Amino acid sequence: MRQAITTLEIRTGGRGLVEFTREVAAFVHDTGIETGLLTVFCRHTSASLTIQENAAPEVRQDITDWLDRIAPEDGGWIHDDEGPDDMPAHLKSILTGVSLSIPVASGVPVLGTWQGVYLVEHRTRPHVRQVVLHVSGE
Amino acid sequence: MRQAITTLEIRTGGRGLVEFTREVAAFVHDTGIETGLLTVFCRHTSASLTIQENAAPEVRQDITDWLDRIAPEDGGWIHDDEGPDDMPAHLKSILTGVSLSIPVASGVPVLGTWQGVYLVEHRTRPHVRQVVLHVSGE
Amino acid sequence: MRQAITTLEIRTGGRGLVEFTREVAAFVHDTGIETGLLTVFCRHTSASLTIQENAAPEVRQDITDWLDRIAPEDGGWIHDDEGPDDMPAHLKSILTGVSLSIPVASGVPVLGTWQGVYLVEHRTRPHVRQVVLHVSGE
Repeated sequence: MRQAITTLEIRTGGRGLVEFTREVAAFVHDTGIETGLLTVFCRHTSASLTIQENAAPEVRQDITDWLDRIAPEDGGWIHDDEGPDDMPAHLKSILTGVSLSIPVASGVPVLGTWQGVYLVEHRTRPHVRQVVLHVSGE
Repeated sequence: MRQAITTLEIRTGGRGLVEFTREVAAFVHDTGIETGLLTVFCRHTSASLTIQENAAPEVRQDITDWLDRIAPEDGGWIHDDEGPDDMPAHLKSILTGVSLSIPVASGVPVLGTWQGVYLVEHRTRPHVRQVVLHVSGE
Repeated sequence: MRQAITTLEIRTGGRGLVEFTREVAAFVHDTGIETGLLTVFCRHTSASLTIQENAAPEVRQDITDWLDRIAPEDGGWIHDDEGPDDMPAHLKSILTGVSLSIPVASGVPVLGTWQGVYLVEHRTRPHVRQVVLHVSGE
């Protein structure tokens, strides 16, 4: 067994989902690993990762709205040093999580037909986010 | 170190939790791997995975009810192509997650006494769901 | 590639977050593995893991309060064998999750500047919690 690691920089346009399934698949392909385990890790506390429906764009809008309801800006949070979108961003990040583990078979991540890999930006303003990809296998 | 991979097909009876801890443990046992890492991955966007209490059946009922409260069918979602249970299913799937990582020691996943591995079906109707198991170690 | 595994015992003071980033980094360091994958796994159904902001203590307070709102003790849960904090603890554990996967580079977990690894205790009373650490790589 062998392994490979890299870091992606993903530009976000502020709050919302950015798909990067293609970049993830390209990384795995370039390693030549046929069977193994892919890990995706987001190095931030106000952005996170999720695997979701890659077909209907309305799904992404509903996800963003739902996260706003669950962790609203007017939630009366104590921590607001960086503005009203800061603490909700941390909470949304906890809910969605910052790591994904995806087995690899036949040289590709075993995502289902409708599954896409997304970075979820929780801050209002655009950011550049670092995502680490690691794959091991043979 | 070496690895093994397989796909389980899990039949659900519609919305609710289906335990498959036994199938997961059997897969690890059959590989003969004593120490390593097990990954469980659900290939869907309207079903997901969780590790929870394997003793009291009321816990499963409370979990299903809680998910319904957090992502209700009458939430005013834009996306409803596949019916009122579709968008809530996506949201519940994001909250619970589709991958689990469990170390293996002495030939078994290191689950605690009360931990069971569950597929969570979020759609109202029964489905057959694909779950990929990967283990690496020696 | 090679691997190592250990179990930490973490004392909690009742509901709240306990950081153990240092213990995790020390484990990885002691294995001498430079590049690889670290897995952190919590063996409980009423405590869980999260990666969050390690700077402002108010963030931890807001997280605990938010979890209480999302899974309140007076939620009318069927399961209450172990007291009113029992079922909310299970639900909070599902939301936050019990496993983390963190790539390792240059001998350290690739956590971002502001990321800390936390055990989240969801029960009211103090507990001793078992967390399994596994690392593979070379």
